[in-house]
Amino acid sequence: MIRVNDDAGVRTIALNRPDTLNAFNGQQFDDLTEALLAAREDSGCRVVVLTGTGRAFSAGADLSEMAAAGPPPRHGFAGMLDVVFDFPKPFVVAINGLGVGVGATIVGIADFAFMAESARLRCPFSELGLVAEAASTHTFPALMGRQRAMWFLMAAEWMDAAACKAAGLVLDVFPDDGFAAAVQARAAHLAALPTESLGHMKRLIAGPGRERLREAAAAENATLAKLVGGPANREALAAFREKRKPDFSNL
Amino acid sequence: MIRVNDDAGVRTIALNRPDTLNAFNGQQFDDLTEALLAAREDSGCRVVVLTGTGRAFSAGADLSEMAAAGPPPRHGFAGMLDVVFDFPKPFVVAINGLGVGVGATIVGIADFAFMAESARLRCPFSELGLVAEAASTHTFPALMGRQRAMWFLMAAEWMDAAACKAAGLVLDVFPDDGFAAAVQARAAHLAALPTESLGHMKRLIAGPGRERLREAAAAENATLAKLVGGPANREALAAFREKRKPDFSNL
Amino acid sequence: MIRVNDDAGVRTIALNRPDTLNAFNGQQFDDLTEALLAAREDSGCRVVVLTGTGRAFSAGADLSEMAAAGPPPRHGFAGMLDVVFDFPKPFVVAINGLGVGVGATIVGIADFAFMAESARLRCPFSELGLVAEAASTHTFPALMGRQRAMWFLMAAEWMDAAACKAAGLVLDVFPDDGFAAAVQARAAHLAALPTESLGHMKRLIAGPGRERLREAAAAENATLAKLVGGPANREALAAFREKRKPDFSNL
Repeated sequence: MIRVNDDAGVRTIALNRPDTLNAFNGQQFDDLTEALLAAREDSGCRVVVLTGTGRAFSAGADLSEMAAAGPPPRHGFAGMLDVVFDFPKPFVVAINGLGVGVGATIVGIADFAFMAESARLRCPFSELGLVAEAASTHTFPALMGRQRAMWFLMAAEWMDAAACKAAGLVLDVFPDDGFAAAVQARAAHLAALPTESLGHMKRLIAGPGRERLREAAAAENATLAKLVGGPANREALAAFREKRKPDFSNL
Repeated sequence: MIRVNDDAGVRTIALNRPDTLNAFNGQQFDDLTEALLAAREDSGCRVVVLTGTGRAFSAGADLSEMAAAGPPPRHGFAGMLDVVFDFPKPFVVAINGLGVGVGATIVGIADFAFMAESARLRCPFSELGLVAEAASTHTFPALMGRQRAMWFLMAAEWMDAAACKAAGLVLDVFPDDGFAAAVQARAAHLAALPTESLGHMKRLIAGPGRERLREAAAAENATLAKLVGGPANREALAAFREKRKPDFSNL
Repeated sequence: MIRVNDDAGVRTIALNRPDTLNAFNGQQFDDLTEALLAAREDSGCRVVVLTGTGRAFSAGADLSEMAAAGPPPRHGFAGMLDVVFDFPKPFVVAINGLGVGVGATIVGIADFAFMAESARLRCPFSELGLVAEAASTHTFPALMGRQRAMWFLMAAEWMDAAACKAAGLVLDVFPDDGFAAAVQARAAHLAALPTESLGHMKRLIAGPGRERLREAAAAENATLAKLVGGPANREALAAFREKRKPDFSNL
């Protein structure tokens, strides 16, 4: 479910379920977490890039598989978040195509995000009767200002690459053609610098905010636990199954 | 002093003293506070829009009436702030025309602000020998960065709609012609989404910063109490009465 | 090492070692600190502007002189920072030409920064096997968002004036021709306003964050003490002496 490639100190981890637009299921979260743990320990890996295979970055949590019975994942979404929150090396997200849900909110916990020109992001949480996750209720206001962040998280509208860059949600936008190479060049630039300096710099910049990230994620999770299966969430899923527009007017 | 209109789950509250450019007096603060309390309790109201009647949004505190004898307002400015700080539903400010003083700083405690193309904002506090209020010494740096915020709050210069949008002080700018309809469309988009999700999202995003808002407003108020009637404030008011430029060079 | 000029309540302090591109040595930090302490106490000084003489703003710490034996500076870098952190009057930085190292990070602790059109900034810390200072690991993310700040602090690349303004790192950019006069006009605008209001406004805006500034600077200094003379730092300095590209691939 993951493809890993090393080049010039840069480890690229690609989500590899293109048939589902790289939607996350429990196994995918586990595989990504294990790949990040291995990257953390490998001294030959100086910078990590997370991207997607095919035309999407990630369609977000795979709701169909989430509902399916099966063994609980070893790390899951929460375990993956923990590893990213504390990741000691530069962590780059390369949005090669559409990103939805956690495929959008993960940008907030990246050190750097780059985006292909035609890519776009969407947070459909409110449409599902839910709230945002991955600490995005904290990271997005910090990156974009409260008004832009609240609109993006509440309104469930698409945000294109140019708007993401203008808002400060991603550092730069590159043409679709040659996107991976452009990201590799930026990542390799970092990888050629002293690893110890970059690690300390990241700790100095991101360390003081880590506790706040955990608090935001915990508050989001507690709220999600209340909302999943509630009236708005049930109406959203029913409308999806019945291929009709949901009606939240009485909720 | 207030006009209220409901449409598609959106309650629009319009400041309605166009002859004074919607300057706030004690009664106006009370009426607005009561309207917000009613909107909070009414389950048919899902989103609140605050705007102005006529060509101005609000000229700020009406200094002439403030000085006048009369019964103290029930809620006043402080009571209005308290209700906005804790308001559980999306609170939109629609700057239809000029906004001065609290007519500008209220943008900082809105969830979303929209601005008509020809509208502009100004914070004349330093020119009056005073300091800013409505927690803007905290909200403006958070929205615009410290340098832009400090200049806007200190320099008493006009900021036009394009600059407000570029700085992140307002979410979007719409043409004057059709401004109210454009705001209504954005607000109605939110109002059609599950209220409970929006309320939780707002709590997750804004809740952790609320205590800091109260502290900022309290520190501003304590400072204002010292500065009102002081030498610079007296010189500013005298110059205004005598239609001359104030001279602060020896203060 | 410092030139001081007063005009209309604005005290301009110019770094004056143009032959070294205004690199800081211990004496320069001491002279600047004394000039700031004098400006703080002088009631005729209402606004302070820091700029550079010649074609550079400041090339940063003068590493050659740092290594030289000699009496320790009275205030030094740490003493200068302390005075700026608590400076009670508007403190403007006017980037007339290139700024490197502390010549870039000082922008983060300015109230306002203006930049000449052709000026540019660079943070070479990682290339030297070091980390950033002057609390920039806190101030730069606050001004630019975490992604832009982390890239600027880690990647050691130049950032030109237009990019600095777009990112919110400087308030405005003026043409090289007439740059000093344009800055003086903005500073004099502030100086004509009531000093007491500006001082209270600065305290309300900047005061709550001061402890965090000190913590960031202390954490940076503790890290620098570990990294100076370490393997990456030694390789960087050896490569500089030997006029070759440093090789950090095994570090």
